[in-house]
Amino acid sequence: MLYEIAQTVVTRLRSAGKSLALAESCTGGMVSQYITSVNNSSQVFLGGVVAYSNDIKQSLIQVSSEDLNKFGSVSDQIAVQMAQGVLDATGSDIGASVTGIAGPTGGTPQKPVGTVYIAVATKNEHRSKLLNLHGDRRSIREQSSKQLLNLIKEMIDTV
Amino acid sequence: MLYEIAQTVVTRLRSAGKSLALAESCTGGMVSQYITSVNNSSQVFLGGVVAYSNDIKQSLIQVSSEDLNKFGSVSDQIAVQMAQGVLDATGSDIGASVTGIAGPTGGTPQKPVGTVYIAVATKNEHRSKLLNLHGDRRSIREQSSKQLLNLIKEMIDTV
Repeated sequence: MLYEIAQTVVTRLRSAGKSLALAESCTGGMVSQYITSVNNSSQVFLGGVVAYSNDIKQSLIQVSSEDLNKFGSVSDQIAVQMAQGVLDATGSDIGASVTGIAGPTGGTPQKPVGTVYIAVATKNEHRSKLLNLHGDRRSIREQSSKQLLNLIKEMIDTV
Repeated sequence: MLYEIAQTVVTRLRSAGKSLALAESCTGGMVSQYITSVNNSSQVFLGGVVAYSNDIKQSLIQVSSEDLNKFGSVSDQIAVQMAQGVLDATGSDIGASVTGIAGPTGGTPQKPVGTVYIAVATKNEHRSKLLNLHGDRRSIREQSSKQLLNLIKEMIDTV
């Protein structure tokens, strides 16, 4: 299922002649792994960053340390900055990001396990989305990956 | 199987109080994804780079463009530079990398599909290994991930 969506994303990127880069936090490389499981994905996928720690979010994709403190790493603002940051750092046409709490620990009353933000940015536009997911760590990571792939797919037509 | 090895790596890193960062090319995030599938891996895993394109190898983890031209991106030299580069870029205790040809295209007589280099670096030492793998894209990526996780496991005791 996830593989089929990844395949569609790669095919559409190829038709559009556009490149993609990813900044993943809670999915930890899962989205990149699905994209690169597709043959010849290297024609459209540049790579990206697994920004698991806040330090990497700041050093490699220029997320603001002030905003990390203000909004928290799991927030709409940081998801958008991650998408824009990986776009700038790699020179891709599309930058996409995901940050969230996959559990089983790390949840709070305000941001329970399953709180995930995804974002997709191009030079002129960005879209972001809050997901309230349920399930175990594996399921939350897979649902997040699927939703991000779908948001990328939507965005390809607008680049 | 891969999950179990990833779990052992996370447990040993935790016992040793050491952190890990990854630079993945042909595995495209698979190793990161296995590591982060382990609960609380964020205590020891900083993240890293999916360095699929040569540009990302240069811009994010300081691989030498001269050496990319001289040795090719699938080479012992570049694997070692990727491991050292992600160590420097993230400040981790251990940096690990993988670069290779997962196929089905991209092979040459000198470097057929299944040619993969893995490397692990610490501040004082590095180890690298050439793998000559057989199988389809999926299998080559899984074998590469397994071998890299095993090399990381060996190296933890020496840090």
